[in-house]
Amino acid sequence: MIQSRTDLALELQEELEQQEQMEGIRIERRVDKSCGISETRIYVETEEASKRIGKPIGQYITLESQKFLEEDSSYYEEMSEALYGVLKSFVTEDKKVLVAGLGNSQVTPDALGPLVVENLFVTRHLKNHNIIKEGMELSAIVPGVMAQTGMETGEILKGIIEETKPDLLIAIDALSARNSNRLNKTIQVSNTGIAPGSGVGNHRQAITEEAMGIPVIAIGVPTVISVPAIVGDAMDAIFQIVEECKGSSFSNLLTEEEKLQLAREIMEPDLATMFVTPKNIDEAVRRISFTISEAINRYIPIVKGI
Amino acid sequence: MIQSRTDLALELQEELEQQEQMEGIRIERRVDKSCGISETRIYVETEEASKRIGKPIGQYITLESQKFLEEDSSYYEEMSEALYGVLKSFVTEDKKVLVAGLGNSQVTPDALGPLVVENLFVTRHLKNHNIIKEGMELSAIVPGVMAQTGMETGEILKGIIEETKPDLLIAIDALSARNSNRLNKTIQVSNTGIAPGSGVGNHRQAITEEAMGIPVIAIGVPTVISVPAIVGDAMDAIFQIVEECKGSSFSNLLTEEEKLQLAREIMEPDLATMFVTPKNIDEAVRRISFTISEAINRYIPIVKGI
Amino acid sequence: MIQSRTDLALELQEELEQQEQMEGIRIERRVDKSCGISETRIYVETEEASKRIGKPIGQYITLESQKFLEEDSSYYEEMSEALYGVLKSFVTEDKKVLVAGLGNSQVTPDALGPLVVENLFVTRHLKNHNIIKEGMELSAIVPGVMAQTGMETGEILKGIIEETKPDLLIAIDALSARNSNRLNKTIQVSNTGIAPGSGVGNHRQAITEEAMGIPVIAIGVPTVISVPAIVGDAMDAIFQIVEECKGSSFSNLLTEEEKLQLAREIMEPDLATMFVTPKNIDEAVRRISFTISEAINRYIPIVKGI
Amino acid sequence: MIQSRTDLALELQEELEQQEQMEGIRIERRVDKSCGISETRIYVETEEASKRIGKPIGQYITLESQKFLEEDSSYYEEMSEALYGVLKSFVTEDKKVLVAGLGNSQVTPDALGPLVVENLFVTRHLKNHNIIKEGMELSAIVPGVMAQTGMETGEILKGIIEETKPDLLIAIDALSARNSNRLNKTIQVSNTGIAPGSGVGNHRQAITEEAMGIPVIAIGVPTVISVPAIVGDAMDAIFQIVEECKGSSFSNLLTEEEKLQLAREIMEPDLATMFVTPKNIDEAVRRISFTISEAINRYIPIVKGI
Repeated sequence: MIQSRTDLALELQEELEQQEQMEGIRIERRVDKSCGISETRIYVETEEASKRIGKPIGQYITLESQKFLEEDSSYYEEMSEALYGVLKSFVTEDKKVLVAGLGNSQVTPDALGPLVVENLFVTRHLKNHNIIKEGMELSAIVPGVMAQTGMETGEILKGIIEETKPDLLIAIDALSARNSNRLNKTIQVSNTGIAPGSGVGNHRQAITEEAMGIPVIAIGVPTVISVPAIVGDAMDAIFQIVEECKGSSFSNLLTEEEKLQLAREIMEPDLATMFVTPKNIDEAVRRISFTISEAINRYIPIVKGI
Repeated sequence: MIQSRTDLALELQEELEQQEQMEGIRIERRVDKSCGISETRIYVETEEASKRIGKPIGQYITLESQKFLEEDSSYYEEMSEALYGVLKSFVTEDKKVLVAGLGNSQVTPDALGPLVVENLFVTRHLKNHNIIKEGMELSAIVPGVMAQTGMETGEILKGIIEETKPDLLIAIDALSARNSNRLNKTIQVSNTGIAPGSGVGNHRQAITEEAMGIPVIAIGVPTVISVPAIVGDAMDAIFQIVEECKGSSFSNLLTEEEKLQLAREIMEPDLATMFVTPKNIDEAVRRISFTISEAINRYIPIVKGI
Repeated sequence: MIQSRTDLALELQEELEQQEQMEGIRIERRVDKSCGISETRIYVETEEASKRIGKPIGQYITLESQKFLEEDSSYYEEMSEALYGVLKSFVTEDKKVLVAGLGNSQVTPDALGPLVVENLFVTRHLKNHNIIKEGMELSAIVPGVMAQTGMETGEILKGIIEETKPDLLIAIDALSARNSNRLNKTIQVSNTGIAPGSGVGNHRQAITEEAMGIPVIAIGVPTVISVPAIVGDAMDAIFQIVEECKGSSFSNLLTEEEKLQLAREIMEPDLATMFVTPKNIDEAVRRISFTISEAINRYIPIVKGI
Repeated sequence: MIQSRTDLALELQEELEQQEQMEGIRIERRVDKSCGISETRIYVETEEASKRIGKPIGQYITLESQKFLEEDSSYYEEMSEALYGVLKSFVTEDKKVLVAGLGNSQVTPDALGPLVVENLFVTRHLKNHNIIKEGMELSAIVPGVMAQTGMETGEILKGIIEETKPDLLIAIDALSARNSNRLNKTIQVSNTGIAPGSGVGNHRQAITEEAMGIPVIAIGVPTVISVPAIVGDAMDAIFQIVEECKGSSFSNLLTEEEKLQLAREIMEPDLATMFVTPKNIDEAVRRISFTISEAINRYIPIVKGI
């Protein structure tokens, strides 16, 4: 009802499924029972479905695990392995890969991308100087956000790509979700790049194959819930309960338009720019970023030999 | 309706005022037109009023300024001066003062207290060794939070007070508010200490004159809004609008108890432990902490001479 | 020759050994060939030996490993296990233990102690509320440094000890060493507490059983080399080479007193307050602190069950 | 004697002056008595002089102030004003300027450049979208270091320059000095860009007008002393004193080559990669970075109006 409640294709698809509007959208689900990680593959296959779900045509893979952030520190390895498994279908070891850690390193829930880059084992300079020969040629950049750089993230990446000629871009970004259960427990991989207006920091420009000139794989993790998402969900829940209490279809008396108007009225304007995070967000972002960087580092077989 | 929506006496008083339950509570308001800082003094004067407002008998002074966090970096000086003005009615320069920076330095909106201590100009060791003679004898501690120390904050402070014998404790803590307009723009000073269950980190034990053995001045700034506060406000707003739409006193059909039940049902359990912050929380907390530390440093006339 | 070149009993003992002044000092050495960790136990047994070596009567155990900071991140576990092995001879699980993370969390090489506390699994509050029953009763504090608190570290710890009644204090501190090979690769455990003037931050007051009222185990890691140590070593080396070149016992023409004078003259005064660290000090201190906190966390069998 | 003791043209010039080898090098000195800031302009005018001093032909301006880091926090403004004065002779307000904050944000004394960028008021995006019209068009980037990115800093900057078309690059970098008195108290501005092998992080590639395609102004501040510089200085001092003691020209018995050999022998290999910093390096780097960013922000008259 209120727009941009979520960056997750999975949550958008769930809304469509409720409304039985799944034409052109194909789903595959799989649970690895040994480790409890579930994988959902969403294929957006037609232009018409793309419009309905609000995401470009392409493939969206979501890994979820409730155990992901538990105390047992070895657990990240299973998620890391699962993510590597997903990446392998998009990126092979012989490619030259540039990783871009998007987001603002000064804002905790937006620092996911920069933290991933911090732990990567980059190899481009080592391969260029013949110090190592095996494994993927990996380079990485933290481009910053427009308020810090005065430049579009897309401009910075485009310039670096043209100068250093990678075959493929992996863009890592913090997302916003609708459901608090998914926060910091879900990794979304897509082959569609990043659309304008998505991510915690809301990129203005698309970072897509069309814009960059090379394929773009996006890895995203929801680290915040937007306040409008929470208020909207609260409204929906109240209307539902009110209807049940009253024994009548109450909320149908309001149009979607009136509901949207309502939500805007009940929120103070400041609130719309705020976000919701759990108290342990600092630690959660560190752990997840490590899971992602270790998944990418698996492409570099030679790490420990140096 | 949902409890502990706010730690601010000002917001609790506003609720009572709406309900015309102000007996035993006295208010004084003052606006400094030159700098736009408004000061509200709330005197909770009777046991009965104390119960109604949910705060101990005593004095609560709130400084508010919409300009507080604007770009103009010199502006903090006016707020700092105003805070010093308030403190002077409680703390005189000849006192030996211990400042406790409460909260978790690892959690951005809870790091206010620790950051204040970081910028204080402590003098106790200098006065003890006769290196300086003028100004207040100031010491400071960051006691940490129970999850990090295994000890109640009150136990740590009690031990240090008994060993180092200050005359007065100033406890600085991040608070939660109900209204997003007050976030990071309001400073509350009270002479009642800190009650259990208040603050972003929710202290279990009271830090009061009774518990510490010396007077306790509390300085607090709201840096988060709790998710229940936001959901509760959304509910109230919806009920009000629904009533107006329907032309009937709808929400009166639900008891307060039923409303509370409703709010609990519509929130996912994870959400109750989350909080809402603005995107610039890192910078905001740094600025406010500096405002407070500079207000206290005004007791130390000799700073620049060292 | 120049004083306080090192806080390591091991390096002090090596100097005495060269001078054949080992009376009253007993040494035991052991290398664990499977993991390459060497353990040296130095027993300072007489008052006279204590004066010569400049350390109190007691036991000093040094763990060393060249592989400690290598890329292989699993390696810290062996060091952690070895440290736990050493601690067990001083601290049993049935004791109530307070860990103090000494040093300045704002100064990278001095932040070792604070970082250890950050990763500890404290249990005192959980045991006091009967949430867990097994394992050691552990509490922890980061007291800060005198320039931040205005109080002696010893005063703060004394107050907390008297209020919370632990059986034993473990004090963790960053040390300075003489030999760059030992930096960040060596852990010293002693049962003598911490003498005034030692540590990177140079505590003024002793933190010993006598001062604290309970036994004190000190864990220290050299994270810096003092500039006087480096200049002094350079001088010694030059004198030695000069002698060899000249075929004469040149440096004997200078008394120890004259050498000391020389070293003072050739150093600019600012230099004496500076220290030497490797470029990777941020990461090194993080890794070592984790090794120590994990060694102490081994006393808490129940960690993963919560 | 030992190479790369300093990145400061001023210190290199002082060595040449002692040796009376100043041909082709012109000096201008000026002290502002009101604020105690001294300015030294070194003009390297011939190829031959350039080789002797080890710096490209061009202009090197050094600002020095002993009061720079004193407690009085208002003092940075004078240094900031003086730096703005120097910059104006190279950079006019009508230019489009890209600022590059070189160095490793994870290594305290190398984080100067990244910290400057953090406080800049960038305007390129605001001017491009017509949100502001006055002042310089400013963009900024923190390119990272090769060990983090796998790319030469020069490659990254080249790509961004070609994509975003600034008129001029200002590169900010932490330097190493020889003299501890200059540490964190000196700012060097040059119009020659940055030569390979200079800076704390030792860039491999030149960042010069020739390489970048646009003029490059370099701003550098010495934040470390290299250990070889300290050992080398100690050696020189010892030789000098030894000669005086012996009444003979002793060190002349050793060739420069032998001295260099000596210095290498007396240093443990680890030491050559370490650096020397003062204890307050975290705070010092923060203050200086703010001084530099405020000097550049003076080009943006409109800052406070937004």
